[in-house]
Amino acid sequence: MADAVGTTRRGRGARKTIRQTRDVTMLPALKRRLPLTEPMDQDQIEKIDAASMSVLEDVGVVFRDPIAIADWRAAGADIRDGDRVHLDRGLVRELISSIPSSFTYHARNPANNLPFGHDHSIFVPMTGAPYLRDLEDTRRNPTLEDLANFHKLSHMLPAMHSSAHHIVEPYDHPISQRHLRITYSSMKHSDKTFMGMTTSPKNAEDVMEMCVLLFGADYMQSHPVVTGNCNGNSPLVWDETMLGALRAFAKYNQPILCSPFVLGGANTPASVAPTVAQLNAEALSCLAYTQVVRKGMPAIYGHYLATVSMRSGAPMAGTPEISLMNFMIGQMARHYNVPWRTSNTLGGAKTLDAQAGYESAMTLNAVLMAGANYIWHSAGWNEAGMHCSMSKFVVDAELCAMGYRMAEGIRWDDFDAAMQAVRDIGPGGHYLGHSHTLENFQRAFFMPEMFDNNSIEQWQADGALDTNTRGLIRARQMLDEYEEPKLDPGIDEALGDYIARREREIPAADALNQEY
Amino acid sequence: MADAVGTTRRGRGARKTIRQTRDVTMLPALKRRLPLTEPMDQDQIEKIDAASMSVLEDVGVVFRDPIAIADWRAAGADIRDGDRVHLDRGLVRELISSIPSSFTYHARNPANNLPFGHDHSIFVPMTGAPYLRDLEDTRRNPTLEDLANFHKLSHMLPAMHSSAHHIVEPYDHPISQRHLRITYSSMKHSDKTFMGMTTSPKNAEDVMEMCVLLFGADYMQSHPVVTGNCNGNSPLVWDETMLGALRAFAKYNQPILCSPFVLGGANTPASVAPTVAQLNAEALSCLAYTQVVRKGMPAIYGHYLATVSMRSGAPMAGTPEISLMNFMIGQMARHYNVPWRTSNTLGGAKTLDAQAGYESAMTLNAVLMAGANYIWHSAGWNEAGMHCSMSKFVVDAELCAMGYRMAEGIRWDDFDAAMQAVRDIGPGGHYLGHSHTLENFQRAFFMPEMFDNNSIEQWQADGALDTNTRGLIRARQMLDEYEEPKLDPGIDEALGDYIARREREIPAADALNQEY
Repeated sequence: MADAVGTTRRGRGARKTIRQTRDVTMLPALKRRLPLTEPMDQDQIEKIDAASMSVLEDVGVVFRDPIAIADWRAAGADIRDGDRVHLDRGLVRELISSIPSSFTYHARNPANNLPFGHDHSIFVPMTGAPYLRDLEDTRRNPTLEDLANFHKLSHMLPAMHSSAHHIVEPYDHPISQRHLRITYSSMKHSDKTFMGMTTSPKNAEDVMEMCVLLFGADYMQSHPVVTGNCNGNSPLVWDETMLGALRAFAKYNQPILCSPFVLGGANTPASVAPTVAQLNAEALSCLAYTQVVRKGMPAIYGHYLATVSMRSGAPMAGTPEISLMNFMIGQMARHYNVPWRTSNTLGGAKTLDAQAGYESAMTLNAVLMAGANYIWHSAGWNEAGMHCSMSKFVVDAELCAMGYRMAEGIRWDDFDAAMQAVRDIGPGGHYLGHSHTLENFQRAFFMPEMFDNNSIEQWQADGALDTNTRGLIRARQMLDEYEEPKLDPGIDEALGDYIARREREIPAADALNQEY
Repeated sequence: MADAVGTTRRGRGARKTIRQTRDVTMLPALKRRLPLTEPMDQDQIEKIDAASMSVLEDVGVVFRDPIAIADWRAAGADIRDGDRVHLDRGLVRELISSIPSSFTYHARNPANNLPFGHDHSIFVPMTGAPYLRDLEDTRRNPTLEDLANFHKLSHMLPAMHSSAHHIVEPYDHPISQRHLRITYSSMKHSDKTFMGMTTSPKNAEDVMEMCVLLFGADYMQSHPVVTGNCNGNSPLVWDETMLGALRAFAKYNQPILCSPFVLGGANTPASVAPTVAQLNAEALSCLAYTQVVRKGMPAIYGHYLATVSMRSGAPMAGTPEISLMNFMIGQMARHYNVPWRTSNTLGGAKTLDAQAGYESAMTLNAVLMAGANYIWHSAGWNEAGMHCSMSKFVVDAELCAMGYRMAEGIRWDDFDAAMQAVRDIGPGGHYLGHSHTLENFQRAFFMPEMFDNNSIEQWQADGALDTNTRGLIRARQMLDEYEEPKLDPGIDEALGDYIARREREIPAADALNQEY
C-alpha cells in the first residue's frame, strides 16, 4: 500500500507535457546544511529550561477538560483547584523522552513522502483566513471553490510540501459540516501530505475516518499521514475542544502540533527571554500530555507567535523579537530532542506591497536559520492572517524556494573545474562562453520568475507590472494548467459516501455562518 | 579638535523640541551579539585561500597603472607582460598583516564617532544612482537639491551611520566639478561621517583638501574621517583612475574599500565557491597594494556583488547565492583579520513594491548574519542601483533599525522580574496592567512606524496608504522638520572659497552631462 496509496499511474504523460512548460515536481524535504543561529549558550538554555520547569511545578497549567485531568491524575501529576495541573520536572522529562525525534510523513503519492525532524524542514501553506484576496485582488469571504484553488496551487508549487487544510474558510458551506469538505478538498486536489481539522473532537474524528478511507486504519497506526494542531490559550491554559481533538489524532497515532498561542506582551511578559520561558512551559505541558495519552505518538513542539504593539494593541510580526524568539525556541526544541513548528511570512500588511515583502522575508530568514522543521504559514499570509492572497501565495512559494536554496548551503563539486576556468579566462576576460559556464549556468544562480530583474525599459514594455499583478497572472496561469492527481475511484466514492452520511447526521441549519 | 570638530553647541534647544516628536539621535555603531552564519569549516576556508593565492601567483593581476607597477616592482613582486603582477602568497600575507583590524571613524560631531571592525557594523546609504524617485514618486535625473535632501535624511535617520557621498548624481552641475559640490553637501547637511569621491585621482585630492579644511591635516593622519572606494574590474584588473584615487587617500591615511566589482557568471565562474575564490584573490591584491603604498593605512575588504541571470543577462540580487557568498566572504575577511564591506538591500524592483521588500530584507538578513562591518547601500537602492527612492530610503532605514535590534541579541536583565510576573498573573490572566509590562513595554518589542499593523478598518480610515505612499509622506515630514547641524562659519567659508577656486580652475563646458 505504501507504494501508491490511493493513486494510479495514469496521467503521467499529460503531466509530463505540462512540465515542459512549468515544473510542478515537489522539492524534496529540505535538508539544511547551513549552521543554525543559536544565540543562547548552554547556561542560558538551562536557565530557560529551569524557569519553565519551575512554572510547571509551582504555578501549574490549567487543563479545562475532565478527561485530561483524569489522565493526568493517573499519570501521577499533582492536581489542585480542580483543573490546575502541577507537573514535576522529572515527570515532564520522562514523558517527553518518548516523543519521536524524527519520522516520515507519508503522502498518498509516495513520491511526495517527507522525512521530518532533525535537519529536515518542510514548508506548509498558511491556513485559517476568513478572507481571501482573489484572482482579481478583491478581498471577500472565501468559498469551497476558492479553497480548492489554493489546494491546487499547493499541489503545483514545488516548494510547498503540504496542501494543509482550511487555507481559507469556505463560507458557502455550513460551519458544522465544513471540516468534511475541507478535508476532502485537501485530499482530492493534491497528493501531498495535508493537515486535519481540530476544531472539535468530533470533527477530528471525522478527519481520522476519512484518512482511514484513504490510507487504511492499520497503515495509519505506523505511518504519519496528516497533522493536527492543538492551540493553547496562553498563559498556561489548554481547553477541552483542542485536547479532545488531540486524543482523536492519538487514537490513530497521528502527529499533533502543541502550539501555545502567544501575543507577546499581552498574554506573556513584555520581554523576549521570559516570553520564551513561558511559551516553553506551555509547549512542554502539551507535549507531555500527548505521551500520557499515547506513549510514543508523534508530537511537535509548536507555537503561534506575534508581539503586541503597545501603542495600538495590534499584533506585529516580521519584527526583530520574533526572529530572536524563533532562534531561542529552536534551541529549546533541540534541547528536548523534539521536532518543532514555527510560522513563516507572518505580517500585518493589508496588500501585497513592500511591507508584506519585508515582513515575509525577515521571518523566512529567521525560521530557516532557527532550524524549524514544520514551517507553517509559508504562503499567502497577509493582514495578520485575516486574508490569504492568491498572488502572495505564489510569490511566497518562490521566496521559499529561494530560502530552500540558501539553506542547502554551498556546492563544492565543480570547484576545481571552475578554478581552471579562472586560469583559462585570465585578467579582463569574460566567462559567458566558457565550457564551465555552459555546463553550470542553469543551476549556478537562482533565476526567480516572480522577481523582475529586467531593465526598466523592458519592464515597461512588458506592461510595467508590479509584483502583486505578476503574482495574480501567475496564479491564473497555474490554475489553467492544473491537472488533478488521480485518486482511486473506489476511495473517492467511499469518501463521498462518508461525507454524505455525515452531512445527513450533522445539523446544518443552526450553524450557517453569519458572515457569508 | 577632537572634541567638537567644526561644530558649535548652538541649536541644541531647538533640536530637543523636535526630538519630542521624532528622535533623530544616531544609533551607536551596532555591536553584534548574535553568532554569525559561517558555512565553511577551516578546511574550506583554507581551500578558498589556497585557490585565491595560486591565482595571484600563477595567473597574476593586471594593474593598468605605471605608478602601481613601479610600486609593486619595488615591493618585490614578479611583473610580467608589462602590467601583470604575480604575487607570491608570502608577500601577500606579509603585506595585509599591517592592515588595522579595527579603528574609529571620527565625525565632525564627536557624538557620531563610530568604532569600526570586529563585531561592529555600520549602515551607509546607497550611492551612485543616476535617477531618483522623488517626493512625488517621479523617476527623473537628480539635482544638487535632491542630493541635499538625501543628505538631510541621512542626518536624521537613526540607523544611518554616514551621509555617504553621491547618493544620487546631481545632473544640474558639470560633471567635472560635481565632486566638489557633492563633498560639500555631505559635510554641510549632516554631521555624521561620510564618503569621498574617487572618480579620479584629482577628484580624490580635492576631497582630501576639503577634509583638511574641515578636520585639519595633522588630525587626519591619525584619525579616519572619510571613506573612499576603489572598484576593481573583474576578472583580475585594477585601473589607473581608482588606484590614483587610492593613493590620494593614502596620503592622508584615510580608509579605502578594496572592491572587486563582481557580476557572478559573467566576470566570474558560474558557481558560488569559485566566484568567492576569484573575488577573494582580487580583494587581496588591492588590500596588499594599499600597504605597499602606505604601510598601516586603514583598508577594508570590499566587493560589489550581483549574479547574472543566464536567461536575460540582468544582474540579480536578493537571491540565495548572494547570501551564501556574503557568509563566505565574511569568513575570509575574518581569516585575514581585516574589516570588510558588503552591499545591503540590493535588488532589481522598479518600484517600492513587494519585490523590493523581499529583496531588501533577504539581503539585510544575510549581511547581518555574515558579520559585515561596512554595510553600504543600506537605504534607497532599487532598480539594480539605477534609482534611489526617497520613500525606500526612509523605509529601508527603519528596516535597518529592526535588523540592528535583532543583531543586538537577547536581553536578560529583567528575566527574574518577568518570571515573577508569570507567577503573579497565573493561568488565563493577562499582562497589560502588570508593573513589569508597564516598566518594559517601550523597549520590549520594536514598534515600527513605516509598517502598518492596524486593522484593515483603521488602515482604511487612515487613507488605505501603501508602504510607498507612507514612505513619501514620512520623507516629506522629515525634510520639513530638518534642522541643519551647525558648521563653524570660518570652516564653511573656507570650503566655499576652495570650491569657488577649483571651479575656476576646472573646465566645465566640455564636461556637461548629456542626460540632464
